[in-house]
Amino acid sequence: MRDEGKKKQSRIATPSATSARSAFSEFDFIEHIRHQANTKRHNAQQHSVLSTQRSVLLSGIGDDAAIFRGSSQTDFCITTDLLVEEIDFRRTTTTPRFLGWKALAVSLSDIAAMGARPRFALLSVGVPQEIWRTEFLAHFYEGFFALADEHQVALVGGDVSRTPERIVIDSIVIGETKRGRAILRSGARPGDHIFVTGALGGAAAGLQLLEQGARPPRRAATSRPPNARTQLLLRQLRPMPRVAWGAWLAERKLATAIIDLSDGLSSDLAHLCRESKAGAIIEAAAIPHKKALDSLSLDEDQRLALALHGGEDFELLFTVRPQHASRIPLEVDGVPATRIGEIRKQVSGYKIDFDGHPRDLQSAGFVHFK
Amino acid sequence: MRDEGKKKQSRIATPSATSARSAFSEFDFIEHIRHQANTKRHNAQQHSVLSTQRSVLLSGIGDDAAIFRGSSQTDFCITTDLLVEEIDFRRTTTTPRFLGWKALAVSLSDIAAMGARPRFALLSVGVPQEIWRTEFLAHFYEGFFALADEHQVALVGGDVSRTPERIVIDSIVIGETKRGRAILRSGARPGDHIFVTGALGGAAAGLQLLEQGARPPRRAATSRPPNARTQLLLRQLRPMPRVAWGAWLAERKLATAIIDLSDGLSSDLAHLCRESKAGAIIEAAAIPHKKALDSLSLDEDQRLALALHGGEDFELLFTVRPQHASRIPLEVDGVPATRIGEIRKQVSGYKIDFDGHPRDLQSAGFVHFK
Repeated sequence: MRDEGKKKQSRIATPSATSARSAFSEFDFIEHIRHQANTKRHNAQQHSVLSTQRSVLLSGIGDDAAIFRGSSQTDFCITTDLLVEEIDFRRTTTTPRFLGWKALAVSLSDIAAMGARPRFALLSVGVPQEIWRTEFLAHFYEGFFALADEHQVALVGGDVSRTPERIVIDSIVIGETKRGRAILRSGARPGDHIFVTGALGGAAAGLQLLEQGARPPRRAATSRPPNARTQLLLRQLRPMPRVAWGAWLAERKLATAIIDLSDGLSSDLAHLCRESKAGAIIEAAAIPHKKALDSLSLDEDQRLALALHGGEDFELLFTVRPQHASRIPLEVDGVPATRIGEIRKQVSGYKIDFDGHPRDLQSAGFVHFK
Repeated sequence: MRDEGKKKQSRIATPSATSARSAFSEFDFIEHIRHQANTKRHNAQQHSVLSTQRSVLLSGIGDDAAIFRGSSQTDFCITTDLLVEEIDFRRTTTTPRFLGWKALAVSLSDIAAMGARPRFALLSVGVPQEIWRTEFLAHFYEGFFALADEHQVALVGGDVSRTPERIVIDSIVIGETKRGRAILRSGARPGDHIFVTGALGGAAAGLQLLEQGARPPRRAATSRPPNARTQLLLRQLRPMPRVAWGAWLAERKLATAIIDLSDGLSSDLAHLCRESKAGAIIEAAAIPHKKALDSLSLDEDQRLALALHGGEDFELLFTVRPQHASRIPLEVDGVPATRIGEIRKQVSGYKIDFDGHPRDLQSAGFVHFK
């Protein structure tokens, strides 16, 4: 996948006065749409007094997924992710199987970031005529179903369309939680501890390798214990959504806020903080780097930059009240979590601490439109 | 919108031995995916015995929308529609406002065809950099919200992405019905009467006008009573999903099957019949033509061809048990319905009757991949 990033309406950052962006970015635009949608919703809810039976929207634009009430016991979350050839991936640096896997993985990650269990998927796929004539789609769906099976997600619908040149995929996933248990980005409070699952920087390093000419690993390489280089490529090509962690946190009501790391730690932490109207400080030394990064000739700054700003690790960043921090286990389903910092008041901004020397943390996530 | 059509996974036609298609079409492919998804689902449901709380999938690939159980009182329907520039629309023959309207309309029509009330929408939009710099998206969302407001649909999420050249839109709508009231394509039985709402052929005629160089009507032309030519253009550019009819039929349990007319009467009737394992006969003289067609110099065969095979009218075709046919009102919400034929046994195939002379009815819908 390309690192140029994508902005979900559900991943909203209010443009701040200190923002380096001078032009009207997609953040501004999405904020505008969010405002419009909220106004319309308000009007619709006034109307809905007339309606005898009407499902309730609990949370819309502004999080990893929207939430609506299913029943007295269940809430549903829904998310959509658009993947466009040459922007989000290239045919030459992935395979149809990896692409099918990743199309589902990015949406499962959004559902995990709500603390929900994924249930149903829909898939809209557009391909040019020359791709239609190949085995592309058969392999694409093979990759999709490989991951869907792991999480018992049922493909329930979709759309197949022709495109002039490029492949385009829209991946939609519906998850469910017990009523009121979905976890938003907005619940973090000053003093909360900040954790991340897994290790960071691997997906961005894998992308660099692909851009330098590495080819996607063959199928056989993915079944035996992969070497460091293959591990980095797989982090980029075949991400593992942290569904078990999300559900674990939600079921125990332990996380106050969650976001998935798609844009990069520095950006996604800022997104979470803006929704929570808070600041944060993280410790540089505490950030878990992907071990396989050691196989590359990188200095410490380069490794830190990959972990801080490299996107698509699809780990979860979550916050926990200080009195509950000790209840976070070393790992869930074989995946560790690491405490990397603390939520602060909004006026404190975003800091990164180098052995007692805090510096300003700049978001260096991906902007589609400059 | 382009008339080259698109095949939804949820609009499945089992390839028949008599099909003129010799190559592997998208119908074959979708049938294959449907089979795979059903097998996987079966496996997942066996697993789900282990799960204490799990939402139930009621109907997946094979209809206008998938259905899942929300609560003891409510079922949800979900649909997705991919619109690709140069395949489904051209920038030169529509406007951003019409495009935003139509993106929602096509999905609302699917929800109407389940007899459900639309509630929530998500919108994934990809645009090239040069479009981003314009007012395109502002006007696009204006058109979207104009229709969303009419149906009290809340935009709850989405994705905004950059594309290399073309605009791409994926429109997702969730609707709800009372438990067990959603209407499938598969419930029609021999003897059922066949009805269509509204009048047919207008959208295809509008497309022809646009392809011959007509420009989309200006905004002012859409508020005053439009002339015949403008009416045809608006049928193509600003379709009216028959939500009121769908809900009316479902609430009274009057329809045994419904499909929306997106591919064209001859194709969509065949889709419904295949899902219902039935045949059909329709009366040529009974098919309601859009009145505005009279303004064009068309002979009777041309008018009939537009009504039979022209797509994108987004009217509903529905079936009713003979003993209930008299309960179908002349109109719902100002939109008429007309009885056009009868469901027959599968072995009878599809026929069209010209004043007592039945002939074979060939589907002439749109195939993406030949």
